[in-house]
Amino acid sequence: MTVYDIAIVGGGPAGLSAALTARVHNKSVILFEAAGFSDKLRRAHRIDNYPGIMTISGPDFMDQLLEQTLAYEPTIAKERVQSVFIGAPFTIMTDENVYQAKSVILATGVTMSKTVPGERALLGRGVSYCASCDGHFFENKDIAVYINTLAYQQDVELLASLAKTINLYIGGALQLPEEWLANLPKSVIVHAKAIVNSVVGEQKVTAIETNEGTHDVDGVFFLRDSCPPENLVEGVVLDGTSVAVGRNMETNYKGLFAAGDVAGTPLQVAKAVGEGQMAAFGAVAFASVN
Amino acid sequence: MTVYDIAIVGGGPAGLSAALTARVHNKSVILFEAAGFSDKLRRAHRIDNYPGIMTISGPDFMDQLLEQTLAYEPTIAKERVQSVFIGAPFTIMTDENVYQAKSVILATGVTMSKTVPGERALLGRGVSYCASCDGHFFENKDIAVYINTLAYQQDVELLASLAKTINLYIGGALQLPEEWLANLPKSVIVHAKAIVNSVVGEQKVTAIETNEGTHDVDGVFFLRDSCPPENLVEGVVLDGTSVAVGRNMETNYKGLFAAGDVAGTPLQVAKAVGEGQMAAFGAVAFASVN
Repeated sequence: MTVYDIAIVGGGPAGLSAALTARVHNKSVILFEAAGFSDKLRRAHRIDNYPGIMTISGPDFMDQLLEQTLAYEPTIAKERVQSVFIGAPFTIMTDENVYQAKSVILATGVTMSKTVPGERALLGRGVSYCASCDGHFFENKDIAVYINTLAYQQDVELLASLAKTINLYIGGALQLPEEWLANLPKSVIVHAKAIVNSVVGEQKVTAIETNEGTHDVDGVFFLRDSCPPENLVEGVVLDGTSVAVGRNMETNYKGLFAAGDVAGTPLQVAKAVGEGQMAAFGAVAFASVN
Repeated sequence: MTVYDIAIVGGGPAGLSAALTARVHNKSVILFEAAGFSDKLRRAHRIDNYPGIMTISGPDFMDQLLEQTLAYEPTIAKERVQSVFIGAPFTIMTDENVYQAKSVILATGVTMSKTVPGERALLGRGVSYCASCDGHFFENKDIAVYINTLAYQQDVELLASLAKTINLYIGGALQLPEEWLANLPKSVIVHAKAIVNSVVGEQKVTAIETNEGTHDVDGVFFLRDSCPPENLVEGVVLDGTSVAVGRNMETNYKGLFAAGDVAGTPLQVAKAVGEGQMAAFGAVAFASVN
């Protein structure tokens, strides 16, 4: 299997900045971005405080940065990273493939949601983050699905075609199309306003508990916009909901770096690209001697 | 005396980025820049790795960043900062004036030279960094002057008009105009290639020691491009020759931040502007509650 020098998880300003710097230093780079290269920044009407550019729209900024980065030819994988396993090299599992890299930079953006109690403990024992990976384990079973991004609509459809019943929980600000919701099979019960409080179970998932009551289920899928970093990397040390990093964007694991919003506030473009660059220097140095 | 919210020492990418962010947050800002807003970057023919700008010359980048920052109207002081005194507020002494600020960001760029043995111990007892401040103490005395930037030619002329003799040491890569050197008074002895090893003295300066020998002097002026940060701020903790900073660009003194090249490698524009922004967030928060 190809071992890349550097794997970058996320293609927002931090991830692309890291890719740019790493490629300038002639390292092999694979960058994972399943959505639209910072959907968040693409919603920004106007950026006035990015040093060196008087004013620019979010989409124009991302397009320029993407063009600039792609000119250095990093490998781009339009796949969703499910897990990063610590090792030499690191192993990166997506919803489609497995990759290896000497060094990894997490640039997954701001974490919109925390994990809920029981979620981590029951991961792989009924809790899953990947419909296409694990959906078939739940054929004709009762499951719960939490979704907070439009990007996962197809995954809900897949699960609906497999499971006996689905209790579907819709996260925070997400607006799912009325028509799409209306066309879901009757086996899907939509809870538009419920808040998921915990996953219940000892050896395996037995129920999901919300502010509207408890439902017995065999499995729970969390389909989140940005995966909480502790779900991506087992044992990564956090500072609040962000990945804890040192002066050079290093995490508690050697060779693993974090940059941009996932590494904490302020949630700003200049800070993100600066950190992406800093993390890339660290990863370049690490990949050179490992 | 006006107490500014934030004083920024240095007007390169880090300093201007910090000023931009601080002004966007409506804090009063004074920025000190005596030279040309990053003379170093202005010598860069071409920058290809600044995220979001495909390619740009160093001077064009600095001009754009300066225009963008000045639109937010920070106060600019074209004065050279000699010392920052820790306190609430901080006191900033330049070669012309004294200022106060609740918070200070050091963005003085890369330190080209280290201090030499004896220099710090004899500061104020014969060692000086400021010709216009201290020159008159050395009327008709024998002094040594170290210079490593064209910006200090006038200071040498001033000292030549006061002192009895000057041993003039020219630093590293500095090319002083032949004609200017030829027109210096005979009391100035130019050592074009000598390396200053130490300042000698117990209670006060008695001599300067170089690789070409020792000269008895009453005082030594170090006129450096970028003042080593430990000369600007007594007791600031270093990491090698850089200011030691934490995750949020904080130094060992509360309210004092550092950003850009002075805070260490990599010496890159994106890293510098990101750190300037990060330091500004810290300074804004500090100034808001102090």
